[in-house]
Amino acid sequence: MYRVDLNSDLGESFGAYRIGMDEEVIRFVTSANIACGWHAGDPVVLDRTIAAAKECGAAIGAHPGYPDLLGFGRRNLAVSPQDMKAYVLYQLGAFSAFAKKHGMEIQHLKAHGAMYNMAGKDIALARGICAAVKDFDRDIILLGLANSELINAAEEMGLRYASEVFADRAYEEDGSLVARGKEGSMIHDEDIAIARVVKMVTTGYVTAISGKEIPVKADSICVHGDGPKALAFVDKIRQALKAAGVEVVRFGSFIK
Amino acid sequence: MYRVDLNSDLGESFGAYRIGMDEEVIRFVTSANIACGWHAGDPVVLDRTIAAAKECGAAIGAHPGYPDLLGFGRRNLAVSPQDMKAYVLYQLGAFSAFAKKHGMEIQHLKAHGAMYNMAGKDIALARGICAAVKDFDRDIILLGLANSELINAAEEMGLRYASEVFADRAYEEDGSLVARGKEGSMIHDEDIAIARVVKMVTTGYVTAISGKEIPVKADSICVHGDGPKALAFVDKIRQALKAAGVEVVRFGSFIK
Amino acid sequence: MYRVDLNSDLGESFGAYRIGMDEEVIRFVTSANIACGWHAGDPVVLDRTIAAAKECGAAIGAHPGYPDLLGFGRRNLAVSPQDMKAYVLYQLGAFSAFAKKHGMEIQHLKAHGAMYNMAGKDIALARGICAAVKDFDRDIILLGLANSELINAAEEMGLRYASEVFADRAYEEDGSLVARGKEGSMIHDEDIAIARVVKMVTTGYVTAISGKEIPVKADSICVHGDGPKALAFVDKIRQALKAAGVEVVRFGSFIK
Amino acid sequence: MYRVDLNSDLGESFGAYRIGMDEEVIRFVTSANIACGWHAGDPVVLDRTIAAAKECGAAIGAHPGYPDLLGFGRRNLAVSPQDMKAYVLYQLGAFSAFAKKHGMEIQHLKAHGAMYNMAGKDIALARGICAAVKDFDRDIILLGLANSELINAAEEMGLRYASEVFADRAYEEDGSLVARGKEGSMIHDEDIAIARVVKMVTTGYVTAISGKEIPVKADSICVHGDGPKALAFVDKIRQALKAAGVEVVRFGSFIK
Repeated sequence: MYRVDLNSDLGESFGAYRIGMDEEVIRFVTSANIACGWHAGDPVVLDRTIAAAKECGAAIGAHPGYPDLLGFGRRNLAVSPQDMKAYVLYQLGAFSAFAKKHGMEIQHLKAHGAMYNMAGKDIALARGICAAVKDFDRDIILLGLANSELINAAEEMGLRYASEVFADRAYEEDGSLVARGKEGSMIHDEDIAIARVVKMVTTGYVTAISGKEIPVKADSICVHGDGPKALAFVDKIRQALKAAGVEVVRFGSFIK
Repeated sequence: MYRVDLNSDLGESFGAYRIGMDEEVIRFVTSANIACGWHAGDPVVLDRTIAAAKECGAAIGAHPGYPDLLGFGRRNLAVSPQDMKAYVLYQLGAFSAFAKKHGMEIQHLKAHGAMYNMAGKDIALARGICAAVKDFDRDIILLGLANSELINAAEEMGLRYASEVFADRAYEEDGSLVARGKEGSMIHDEDIAIARVVKMVTTGYVTAISGKEIPVKADSICVHGDGPKALAFVDKIRQALKAAGVEVVRFGSFIK
Repeated sequence: MYRVDLNSDLGESFGAYRIGMDEEVIRFVTSANIACGWHAGDPVVLDRTIAAAKECGAAIGAHPGYPDLLGFGRRNLAVSPQDMKAYVLYQLGAFSAFAKKHGMEIQHLKAHGAMYNMAGKDIALARGICAAVKDFDRDIILLGLANSELINAAEEMGLRYASEVFADRAYEEDGSLVARGKEGSMIHDEDIAIARVVKMVTTGYVTAISGKEIPVKADSICVHGDGPKALAFVDKIRQALKAAGVEVVRFGSFIK
Repeated sequence: MYRVDLNSDLGESFGAYRIGMDEEVIRFVTSANIACGWHAGDPVVLDRTIAAAKECGAAIGAHPGYPDLLGFGRRNLAVSPQDMKAYVLYQLGAFSAFAKKHGMEIQHLKAHGAMYNMAGKDIALARGICAAVKDFDRDIILLGLANSELINAAEEMGLRYASEVFADRAYEEDGSLVARGKEGSMIHDEDIAIARVVKMVTTGYVTAISGKEIPVKADSICVHGDGPKALAFVDKIRQALKAAGVEVVRFGSFIK
């Protein structure tokens, strides 16, 4: 029996600002990455989003980011590994208070945007993130890009981890994502994207941009809920996975 | 045997900005109120300050404030009781992650500046603060102004609480502090201030500005560490209390 | 010939966050109040919004607010008159750089939310705002609530000013707005609201909540662009004003 | 007759936080770079600092930085050239309002920290900064690192510019600064540092770390005011320059 998780970023509204279709997408995913108030989100939104995840039966994870609300945490910021650890610990702690309030377990932690991307390529930053998780609660699963330094750091430090794949992105031969902007980096055809994902989950392989078959671990698929089209796509992935005999379930249920 | 605690605000530095003489004052107090990154403080400072408190044997408490770094949390802000609860829970959670990292127990929570003052007079806001504490961990003691709504709310909600007094402030007949700016609101003479504090601790009474003797509970005395003069005064209070047979000890050891 | 201006708050998006239907509402109003990056807005949005106003022929004004992005500038904050002046001057200067870039004149300044409300009732705060305008450019018109301290301060300090009225709010006998939350404070019936506005503009009187006719100066009507219904209402007001023989034109063209 | 300017970063305090010895260093420098409220500074500090510069006869310049108060603007942030332009224009405009209030001319603009460093090596970012200056007021002089892309961009765009040198930094053969952290990057001996500066000003050459003599333009020397030792060093440089027949004067008086 094949199993895979669907995760999405949620709780990104801030004060009077609304972003995302949280109420809809939460019903389709098995894991919710919830913003912690730095790059997005605020305490009231955090509270409401965890409550919604509980109601819908989605597992929850902290989704810390850089202190860059203006850039939505998407811009590289030269943070030291020591500061990274402190920043992640802070946001994880804040997140945990609301999880506790709602009697929810923290399944995972996934870094956001530039924090995720930079740590995926820099083992020192990845260790900073993992050290925060380890100090806080070593049962929390680190969700990181498959084949990245985030996964390497988690393994090295004895943390539980889950490998994430992207339906709409091409892969290099070394298992990394083809950089955005490079030709062919995005998979625009939905059917091809879905076929690729199903193959990753059921075979453990993906066709790299070069044409070579490369191994990739697919514990969780990243999906988006920022519009009606995105939502429809999530539903389509779910259907295709089920049709292929894949159980869509939170990764906390199968990650050791 | 009389007992009293000495508390001070610590961990108020932010990034490149240094404020306070934390390394010195931490040696004189029994309880440290540590800023949680909103009105002051940041994750790196929080980490360092809890480590320092541990080393010096001071008990620690979360010191949440309004989201007003520019005003240092000292300006009244019209926050709703619901937002208040979420803001305090967020900061308490963030704080707790660093306490956990250092293996320290959270003794208390004390609101900062305008949050403390407003909640001291507004039972709905006071309940918002207490609700956050209660949801998070009902063993945490609320430190609030003696005779204020903070104390009333804590009692009403079944929380543990400690009453705070000020050495350098005059009291009205109803037990509230004489508003700053009013004549006689500040006690400038150090010897008088110390004598008043010793009396509060050993008799449970203070002479109000009107001349009347009024009851006041003095579980903890608020002291400052923002300059050499302030530090010298803290030392003087400690000596005077000891000379009067008062044990200076963290309030967590005697509050039920 | 009667004349009145229609003003609306614009440029309130921030980073990845979108708010308001700026592109639509800008076509209906004669004056745009543009957020300056404190309670809402950012430099990129400011640039884009001024460009849009220029294209649509709307006059522009700085719309400064409190440093409270989380509360969208809607929460009272205890700012001193001196700080108020500095805050307004800062935001007005930032705004002016983009106006200059686009070769646009600054017609006016209107404070936002809690800053507007507090200064409307506190002459010292109102003077702080007016002092900033006066120091920067005394040709800029202060747009303030009719009959409020903002108007009083502007007159006292020799500034040009325009009086603003609200279509959907009831008035007390003294010309102030009936506080939100009080019964009857909001005028929900669109036709009644429009009839009231037309009357204010053409007669200079409004029926207070008590039933008494009171004088009110209506140089500009505040409208909203936060949804399709709001937009339709703005269009309806415009039509009704024109039908009543009122010219809808920027107030800069008729304020002395 | 040789001439050179001494510049220093000022106005970096924020709210309750004090940083730097502004009152002292302002008396030694001829040009003050004043923080604009993003990486440091606030409207009240900005007002006070321009007033102090006026009193001491120092020329003033805007000192914009990244929106990273927590990192004091010292951390690289991946800002687009378009955003850079908007960020600089915003801060320059805010700054200008206070200059106007005090009747002071804006002599120059110098980017802060990571903004300065990144733009010094990236012509697109440098053009973003220069475009903001050009749109606002093309008489403002861009102060940039000698031989850097900031100077190149200013020249290319027809802006006035001044070249800055550092007394305590070693230079590569190509005229760039030796990266901090590399051996020999810092000149610790004060007498050597001063001799180097005097030579740069009077000959237009400096000895690179390789030993080779390279050309360097020295319109302004960057000095610091963050402690008594730094202040004493500034005074020493001034004396040495005067002894060598160099006039210490604002660069606005000699830059074409």
